[in-house]
Amino acid sequence: MPDPPAIKATPEQLDAVVYDADGLVPAIIQDDETGQVLMLAWMTAETVALTLAEGRTVFWSRSRREIWRKGETSGDRQLVRSGHYDCDGDVLLFRVQQQGRGACHTGRMSCFHRPFGSGRNEDRQ
Amino acid sequence: MPDPPAIKATPEQLDAVVYDADGLVPAIIQDDETGQVLMLAWMTAETVALTLAEGRTVFWSRSRREIWRKGETSGDRQLVRSGHYDCDGDVLLFRVQQQGRGACHTGRMSCFHRPFGSGRNEDRQ
Repeated sequence: MPDPPAIKATPEQLDAVVYDADGLVPAIIQDDETGQVLMLAWMTAETVALTLAEGRTVFWSRSRREIWRKGETSGDRQLVRSGHYDCDGDVLLFRVQQQGRGACHTGRMSCFHRPFGSGRNEDRQ
Repeated sequence: MPDPPAIKATPEQLDAVVYDADGLVPAIIQDDETGQVLMLAWMTAETVALTLAEGRTVFWSRSRREIWRKGETSGDRQLVRSGHYDCDGDVLLFRVQQQGRGACHTGRMSCFHRPFGSGRNEDRQ
């Protein structure tokens, strides 16, 4: 499979991203085809740059305190189709093509598979 | 318009939500009809309970340090159709019916209207 295309962000776009006191910004990951929200994880300025350059999601693991290349061992990689930053610059949204079993470490497509109440199960796949 | 239905979460579901050191949990807001990701804001245990009880989104404003009933003055209210918590319990996802102009204070439907690179504009509406 060829490398996914990189996203060439401008310096102004990268400067618009606001990081918290720990140097982190939350990144929402959405399935580009179905629109399903898959997960949320955290990025540093370095992993934002890596995600855009490599065209796959790279996060910061807050528990392990290290760079986390999503799917590096599991194969559940996420190829980035588009990236957006919000009006305040303090939240990111990436639309991806999910590979492997799904986004969740439980093997489900989405991490949001537990409803409040007796509502719909969001994990339809 | 009649009151939106409340979501009756169980004590076990509410106990599964994990709050950070500031007592906050991020909540992703998604348009229930189109699947568009509209915004992310923060909730306390109190505003999670209010959101579920009232069937509309209620957040915690970190800047104003007060409860923020989304759309209370603007009319851009969000009626909750479903709520989910993720596998770690530390992120929430609400699917909503967006009222008014949209979710963003700029008047756009989504807060994620600025792409990295020359990518698609996510705010299609």
